Amino acid sequence: MALEQDLAALLGPKGWLTEDTGSYQTDWLKLQSHAPLGVARPQSTAEVAGVMRLAHAAGVPVTPQGGNTSLCAGAVPGAPGHVILSLSRMNKIEPVDPLAFSVTVEAGAVLASVHQIVEAHDLIFPMHLGAEGSAQIGGLIATNAGGSHALRYGMMQDLVLGLEVVTPDGRIWNGLRPLLKDNAGYQLRRLFCGSEGTLGVVTRAALRLYPAPVSRATALLAVEDFETLVRLGAGLRRDLGEFISALEFFCESGLEMLLRNVSGLDYPLSERTRAYVLVELSTSARGIDLSSMLEEALGAAFETGLIVDGAVAANDTQRAAMWHLREEMPEGQRLEGAQVKHDISVPVAGLSQFIDAMEAELEVILPGVRLNPFGHLGDGNIHFNLSPPAGMPDFGDNKAALSYCLYRSAEQAGGSFAAEHGLGRSKTTFAQQLRSPEERDLMAAVKRALDPENLLNPGVILPAENPQE
Amino acid sequence: MALEQDLAALLGPKGWLTEDTGSYQTDWLKLQSHAPLGVARPQSTAEVAGVMRLAHAAGVPVTPQGGNTSLCAGAVPGAPGHVILSLSRMNKIEPVDPLAFSVTVEAGAVLASVHQIVEAHDLIFPMHLGAEGSAQIGGLIATNAGGSHALRYGMMQDLVLGLEVVTPDGRIWNGLRPLLKDNAGYQLRRLFCGSEGTLGVVTRAALRLYPAPVSRATALLAVEDFETLVRLGAGLRRDLGEFISALEFFCESGLEMLLRNVSGLDYPLSERTRAYVLVELSTSARGIDLSSMLEEALGAAFETGLIVDGAVAANDTQRAAMWHLREEMPEGQRLEGAQVKHDISVPVAGLSQFIDAMEAELEVILPGVRLNPFGHLGDGNIHFNLSPPAGMPDFGDNKAALSYCLYRSAEQAGGSFAAEHGLGRSKTTFAQQLRSPEERDLMAAVKRALDPENLLNPGVILPAENPQE
Repeated sequence: MALEQDLAALLGPKGWLTEDTGSYQTDWLKLQSHAPLGVARPQSTAEVAGVMRLAHAAGVPVTPQGGNTSLCAGAVPGAPGHVILSLSRMNKIEPVDPLAFSVTVEAGAVLASVHQIVEAHDLIFPMHLGAEGSAQIGGLIATNAGGSHALRYGMMQDLVLGLEVVTPDGRIWNGLRPLLKDNAGYQLRRLFCGSEGTLGVVTRAALRLYPAPVSRATALLAVEDFETLVRLGAGLRRDLGEFISALEFFCESGLEMLLRNVSGLDYPLSERTRAYVLVELSTSARGIDLSSMLEEALGAAFETGLIVDGAVAANDTQRAAMWHLREEMPEGQRLEGAQVKHDISVPVAGLSQFIDAMEAELEVILPGVRLNPFGHLGDGNIHFNLSPPAGMPDFGDNKAALSYCLYRSAEQAGGSFAAEHGLGRSKTTFAQQLRSPEERDLMAAVKRALDPENLLNPGVILPAENPQE
Repeated sequence: MALEQDLAALLGPKGWLTEDTGSYQTDWLKLQSHAPLGVARPQSTAEVAGVMRLAHAAGVPVTPQGGNTSLCAGAVPGAPGHVILSLSRMNKIEPVDPLAFSVTVEAGAVLASVHQIVEAHDLIFPMHLGAEGSAQIGGLIATNAGGSHALRYGMMQDLVLGLEVVTPDGRIWNGLRPLLKDNAGYQLRRLFCGSEGTLGVVTRAALRLYPAPVSRATALLAVEDFETLVRLGAGLRRDLGEFISALEFFCESGLEMLLRNVSGLDYPLSERTRAYVLVELSTSARGIDLSSMLEEALGAAFETGLIVDGAVAANDTQRAAMWHLREEMPEGQRLEGAQVKHDISVPVAGLSQFIDAMEAELEVILPGVRLNPFGHLGDGNIHFNLSPPAGMPDFGDNKAALSYCLYRSAEQAGGSFAAEHGLGRSKTTFAQQLRSPEERDLMAAVKRALDPENLLNPGVILPAENPQE
């Protein structure tokens, strides 16, 4: 086939793979696996443009791929014979600009590598999530990643100052201005953030950096119920204002599974309650005693009954132990057996009512189903994962009904059925069902405008068959 | 004409004005004034949709308008016979949600009114700019306003959680979810921010609120030159981290005009230098001694020669006096006579070289031309305004050449010729000249996708005649 030969000639033997493509074609959750025409691994923006021009001319769909850590199958093809465009070899990180608090990186740079390099300048790139050892900047931008620090520092769309993007027909848009303020027309950089590789291929980005914290304080708190949790969270945001870098919650059922299934963990409190929150403060200013401030706030919360129990980490070991409880939550549930994951958000004020309502509604669908809501209290983002009733190996026929109930209820509560993981291929049908025709039409119009031939990651965000309706 | 009668019937006598339309049809800088078919003043989203449906059916262009404070003629029609759609009567502010730190408002709510209402809940909506007494939320969103607090809190696109928008053909998109995290497809809310009324009419918005500061510290500093200014700014951002809410600079020529032309101002320092910076810290946490922290940082800066002179405001009167110097800067120059305004941004690290280069280049175009760069040091946004040489009443034939030189140079320095005021009607030609064909084509494709008949604010962002190319 001519395209294959052209790509091989353009990219060379290391740049065009047609064998052993399994790790590229299969997503993290193993939802999809279709043999591609091949895997393109360009080394420059010009090569990316060349790949797109050739594929465009041949009418062959292309799926851009970063670290392939999507939880919605958004970075693998939905059918055989497509081109996978891996940005992994484009991983250069330019010199940090300490005066402008920015750094320009190629799309294939791994998040943890960016962390490491900017930290040598006493700066941070404040995006943290479980997959940071393999997730790449381009994929994080394409999916508008959120993570545990989004309340303070924002999502990827808030951390990208400038972008370079290759269009579906192989033109290069240089929007790589490292600026907070650039109102010369539509905010294209914001549009490409979260477009999941369906509008263009991100090749480079200017990222926003922040001063590194010089001190931290971390506490784990046990709270009577979710209603109290919401009030506690709002109070902490008021009293400790700009210092809160994380406000992560989990629940008793998740903690119980975690402590049963994962060894070497330490639960530092004496009381067990229905809900827990990990609060972390940090500051880049010297001379601020965060631990005292946190202890004082918690003392007040204890006196007014907002918390039942709590501990402030006395050192980094204790801090790490607290974070492990939160971070290992998915692992604790995975080891329990079958599960179904959901990534939703609801307006923070309604979080407690939402969880209560879900306990009742999901119980009707599958009596005994075990709920494990945990996530980001500050922004209402809940990873609302489910396990089958105790003693049952799976959900029987109820998986779809459980998910649909959760998704529809999140939407009805003014929230979102897709908070930070995106739609990928897994959730496009739900989007058709749960979002308004007006919204879907706007999105289809944008897709049609920027990728009229539907060649870039077809089937992601909009249905593959007919995104034009 | 049928449209006129239909709109009169839909909106009633207070909702459809055909006389005394002067204040609606003429922009703030009096660059444009074309008699409209009439001014529609709907009272509800449904009425806005009705206006758009009728205008769409009749093929008559519509210009949405908020407080009509655009500095680029973006909110008045570019030709006679269009409909002006004023959102002024839609100014309701819903109850503040203190647990979710958000409030939902109609597009016509005046910024200062929003400030006042949320402050009663010890919260702030951190958008501050000169026109806040008349600028409306819808217009601020449409222009993606920036202002003096953008370094800390972001621009409007960062402060809008959810949006309701009426499309050019009169459909209502309800994206009013008050969420930080909503990755269910393209980030439409971000796309409408900064679209200057050309893609849809913003009718309601869910805004992000922050805890109100409980203390502040403000200082005015005199700095030898702009290179030192840049280093000082970066150092303050590192040392005082999350507390900096404003970092505003101005220059000697502006100060000199200001003190000569505006009475009742107080310059609190003894030294005069080439550059000045107003730094303000604020915190919503109790028990933080910002004044001491600021004094300590300034003591260190004085010792290392980063500042020549400086004073920390001892009370609110002194603080207000310092802010007056910055805020009255445009007035000082206006009273001097003819002027030409520019709103540009450059990467912060290059700010000094840029100003030096402009001094040399503009002097070649018009010897003696007086430069008055001032603005936002943290984000590199410079209001680079010019006055004619001393003794000359105007710029002769050089105005366009001066502007073009500044704009082109900002772009060449990796910056933007349009930082926070947008393009409006004034800058679309510059955009054609200064931005790449790829970028203009992407914008034209987005416009064509969402407003295929080019009926919504034609001539803004893209040229009126032929936005489709």
